[in-house]
Amino acid sequence: MSKRKAVNAQDEWKQNPMQAVNNHKFLNEPNDAVVESLLGFVQAHPNCQLLDGLPDVKVVVRANTLLSNVDKNKVALISGGGSGHEPAHAGFVGEGMLNAAVCGDVFASPSVTAVLAAIRHVCGPNGCLLIVKNYTGDRLNFGLAAERAKLEGYKVEMVVVGDDCALPPPLGVAGRRGLAGTLFVHKVAGAAANSGLGLTAVKLEAMQAAACVGTVGVAVAAHTLPGASAPARLIPPGKMELGLGIHGEPGAATVPVTNVETLVGTLLEKITDTKSGYMKCLDGKINPPKTGLEKVATTEVDPPKPPPAPKVAVMINSLGATPSMELHVAAKAAREWLKNRGLNPARVYVGSFMTALNMTGFSVTLLSLDQQRLQRLDADVVSAAWPLVARAEAKMAPMPEARRDVGQDAEVDRVALSKARHAKDGTEPPKPVTWLGGLVLKCVTRAATALLGAEKALTEADTKVGDGDCGATFARGAAALLLDAPHMCDFDSARDIAIAIGLTIRRSMGGTSGALYDIFFAAAGVAMRDKDASDPKTWFLGFEAGVAAVKKYGGALPGNRTMLDALIPALEAARLKVAEGRSSSGVEALALAAKAAKEGAEATRSMAAGAGRSSYVPEHVLASVADPGATATATWIAAVADAAAEYL
Amino acid sequence: MSKRKAVNAQDEWKQNPMQAVNNHKFLNEPNDAVVESLLGFVQAHPNCQLLDGLPDVKVVVRANTLLSNVDKNKVALISGGGSGHEPAHAGFVGEGMLNAAVCGDVFASPSVTAVLAAIRHVCGPNGCLLIVKNYTGDRLNFGLAAERAKLEGYKVEMVVVGDDCALPPPLGVAGRRGLAGTLFVHKVAGAAANSGLGLTAVKLEAMQAAACVGTVGVAVAAHTLPGASAPARLIPPGKMELGLGIHGEPGAATVPVTNVETLVGTLLEKITDTKSGYMKCLDGKINPPKTGLEKVATTEVDPPKPPPAPKVAVMINSLGATPSMELHVAAKAAREWLKNRGLNPARVYVGSFMTALNMTGFSVTLLSLDQQRLQRLDADVVSAAWPLVARAEAKMAPMPEARRDVGQDAEVDRVALSKARHAKDGTEPPKPVTWLGGLVLKCVTRAATALLGAEKALTEADTKVGDGDCGATFARGAAALLLDAPHMCDFDSARDIAIAIGLTIRRSMGGTSGALYDIFFAAAGVAMRDKDASDPKTWFLGFEAGVAAVKKYGGALPGNRTMLDALIPALEAARLKVAEGRSSSGVEALALAAKAAKEGAEATRSMAAGAGRSSYVPEHVLASVADPGATATATWIAAVADAAAEYL
Repeated sequence: MSKRKAVNAQDEWKQNPMQAVNNHKFLNEPNDAVVESLLGFVQAHPNCQLLDGLPDVKVVVRANTLLSNVDKNKVALISGGGSGHEPAHAGFVGEGMLNAAVCGDVFASPSVTAVLAAIRHVCGPNGCLLIVKNYTGDRLNFGLAAERAKLEGYKVEMVVVGDDCALPPPLGVAGRRGLAGTLFVHKVAGAAANSGLGLTAVKLEAMQAAACVGTVGVAVAAHTLPGASAPARLIPPGKMELGLGIHGEPGAATVPVTNVETLVGTLLEKITDTKSGYMKCLDGKINPPKTGLEKVATTEVDPPKPPPAPKVAVMINSLGATPSMELHVAAKAAREWLKNRGLNPARVYVGSFMTALNMTGFSVTLLSLDQQRLQRLDADVVSAAWPLVARAEAKMAPMPEARRDVGQDAEVDRVALSKARHAKDGTEPPKPVTWLGGLVLKCVTRAATALLGAEKALTEADTKVGDGDCGATFARGAAALLLDAPHMCDFDSARDIAIAIGLTIRRSMGGTSGALYDIFFAAAGVAMRDKDASDPKTWFLGFEAGVAAVKKYGGALPGNRTMLDALIPALEAARLKVAEGRSSSGVEALALAAKAAKEGAEATRSMAAGAGRSSYVPEHVLASVADPGATATATWIAAVADAAAEYL
Repeated sequence: MSKRKAVNAQDEWKQNPMQAVNNHKFLNEPNDAVVESLLGFVQAHPNCQLLDGLPDVKVVVRANTLLSNVDKNKVALISGGGSGHEPAHAGFVGEGMLNAAVCGDVFASPSVTAVLAAIRHVCGPNGCLLIVKNYTGDRLNFGLAAERAKLEGYKVEMVVVGDDCALPPPLGVAGRRGLAGTLFVHKVAGAAANSGLGLTAVKLEAMQAAACVGTVGVAVAAHTLPGASAPARLIPPGKMELGLGIHGEPGAATVPVTNVETLVGTLLEKITDTKSGYMKCLDGKINPPKTGLEKVATTEVDPPKPPPAPKVAVMINSLGATPSMELHVAAKAAREWLKNRGLNPARVYVGSFMTALNMTGFSVTLLSLDQQRLQRLDADVVSAAWPLVARAEAKMAPMPEARRDVGQDAEVDRVALSKARHAKDGTEPPKPVTWLGGLVLKCVTRAATALLGAEKALTEADTKVGDGDCGATFARGAAALLLDAPHMCDFDSARDIAIAIGLTIRRSMGGTSGALYDIFFAAAGVAMRDKDASDPKTWFLGFEAGVAAVKKYGGALPGNRTMLDALIPALEAARLKVAEGRSSSGVEALALAAKAAKEGAEATRSMAAGAGRSSYVPEHVLASVADPGATATATWIAAVADAAAEYL
């Protein structure tokens, strides 16, 4: 083994931090990535197919526009460019948007041959419009193809989109790159074409949309190219790049990170900056930032009603690796900024539209809307990646209340009310007024006392096989039950008792055991509804339903070394005795249940752990103690059996 | 400035490689991220709204199921769990899938209160089904809420999904986590409920789907929690983790990276492993891997027709930060593996369904299909995140051919054919047979010779203000034209001449200049179609169209220091002279054009660069030379003017 290999990974990273990131890409031969990805794409997405020209001609077209059935009544729409921006552009092929997406290699313009093939495939007698992002390679290759196609007699027009607002105008006509705003142009032109307009009219709408759209992006991590071992470059921790391009072109500025609300404001300020004049559509329509010192109207007459806020569409576009949660937080911030500045964010688009491989960042795009453009955005589209978008501001739905008609008493915590009342007037809890209240007081007190007495042993056992909190957890529940039991003395329904015990446990106990006992008593309550509390069968049904719920929601099976290994033997031991139906059956069944629960708990020593934390403990340690949850269960069952025998 | 601050970023990373990654999250207060994100979500997505219980109750419901208009005829579907798995589960709320998504904090189960609020809001007289991923917290909180709701009289059932196939069964009943396969259960149950089935039947279909679905994931980079400064852990470069959980639970194995074809095979082997028995639905239906040694049938009778391949659905699910391109490459690999093993991948779902914040990796899910389940998958759904999916294997569309009716001669490269013919029979190029052929031979030869003579000067100038390839680029085109010109001698159409020159340039020249001259001649050809080659106006129209195309597709404006600064003065100088319409107008116009082009090229010295590489060069350097592209243009125009004056 060479010395080099002995260096561990951490040390290697120290030597070369550029390699610290695991930049593995899930690809085969990197050079085949685009073709393989397109093959995967057309198999997964409807209405899409590839022209049979791979690997040189990479063109995705609508599956229903074969050469023989070009839609003769509509203008065809073609876009494309380098790959690596998925879902752009193939994800937007479909009725209402593109007829064809011409795909180049990663970040490289497609060839003239590929564009020409797309034109020949989709262009009917009404002609076609090429929508091209403003990069020299794309302009030239699409332009050449357009001229060649015209030689063949096709009607072809081309619109170039440069929506980048990162740099001010003096930096050159070539400087406004085509970014995510291009997709708004696709959508507007696609809907216009689908409505049956002619080529000139469709081109005009596309150009108007292109003139009314602006985009600025931000990133904190650059992409890694297929086949490369490191990101295109590192953006240092604590910094972010504003206004960078979708091929990793350096940003206009590297600045310290801020929260996303501030960041989104910065990006929108940039887009709407009147000095650059990129969003002329909005000139004079945006309010200055609020200073908090705005004058409040003091005249007595009503101020004139302000004109309706100008409508805009906003797009929050992932640059590749930004989680949905962050995009939606940014969307919320963008809405608020726009509203604060007097605009109406009528449509909000959030997701991946125009990415840059796995770049971590997002872009904000603003499109100024008139009535027609809004209709174009809302027109139906069937494509892999264009989203459904809300057309009205979401309202909150009112919180539903408990069904008082059927469940009022279940929801009212009578024990808590009783405690509050007696605390207020300084009196004692109610004297036992019902037979049932007396039974409960006795059983609960005895069970709680037993669990408190077992705390130390439970803690010791759980420290060996669990996280050591079992004793304290049961002690918390027991202490709360001791306080609450006197307030149950006027109860007269088995169901209410179960619910009351469950609520006390929910308030006090915590942990998985607390949740499971909460479930146990809630299910028992349902099962005992309207049943005779003096019949042992009622209590058996409750117990049975409780065990079933623990089994169902706890996810453990008998033999998995859990409380079930005490509960289930107890249940089965009691079953036959209860069925005998004599007046003494209840007490006798409880005695049998207590014995079976204790044996069941002891038997857990020989069990492997199947659920819960014990699953990570070695076997010989497990064998040294019984499962603490099962032991606690056996403890309270035994106490209840004793108490019931005395009371009944 | 402290010494600490003087350490640069790279050195800091060396000291602490865990911090090498820029882990910035685009959030405000990390603890508010889930609530802000949900507010952003409901504003962007239709048919969704939040219950008015934020921040504790985070429940997304269908906007059309207010308490007052619960769909009385249908079973309601509720799912949810910790956040951080977006689009799950809110992205699947909508007709045909969920009625409500109950969202916890990041990776934390929602509370009983939240689940109960969801049940109360959407559950009608036909009851509701809770679909829960198999995690203790979710099982208990959803289970408790179910039991409490039953106390209120609601009909509630619950199905727990554990589709994880990473670990073999002995590792515990709690070990099968709920992963992306849960979404197939949503879809099946959602379609069943939407079809009007009762609660028992819907639950049965959900349970059957849950029993027939398996998932295994892979990752190369863990997620970073909101508020954390580093990823949950580092997976070393060159390694990947198989079978890890969607909360970053460690994988079943860390292995060296492989290509994605091998990786997808490994994951699918794991899912379909008969020893684990997780996909019993497929037992006996999967062929062994092909060895290449399969026996070929040797009998003369036809072998029995094999039964149709069992249908499966496969989902390639991004774990958060994996680019679409890689997911689709994996989808292609999965399809091929399944087909090779005798299964029919009838439906392929690719995208983000159940993520883990920004984890880099993906999961593969397999669902065994019967006719009913396939129908359930295909049933309509209106939600933010469930995709349209292809229902049949995509066929390739045939490559379209050039329109021979209108553009045949444009496509046939007559010069290349002529060269090939004469090379084959050893004869000379055609003697000049047409007046036009003679003109072309003289003009092209003279222009090419002039450009070859200017190569050195062009290279020197371009080395100062560009990338130094201008001389070589024009020389390549010139040399090719010298070879091809003799083969143009039998041409008799101005359009064909332009096309032929353009084709020679396309083959030989390269670079942006080559593309622009290609466009120039293609556009000139279109403009000169069917026009008289002996009329100077024809050539002027071609020249004008060529200049317009360069302007349009090149993206530069006059004064941007490009070839346009020679072309446009030449065009304007020629315009009036040509309009005079005398027989000598052509030669006179060319002379004026040559003079204007030369002056235009010289004038570029004082111009700032607005397009192309020169935009990065300091002003004083630019002033020392004229733009090489403009100079080359002036060079050939002058040569053509001389040659034409001699010939005409």
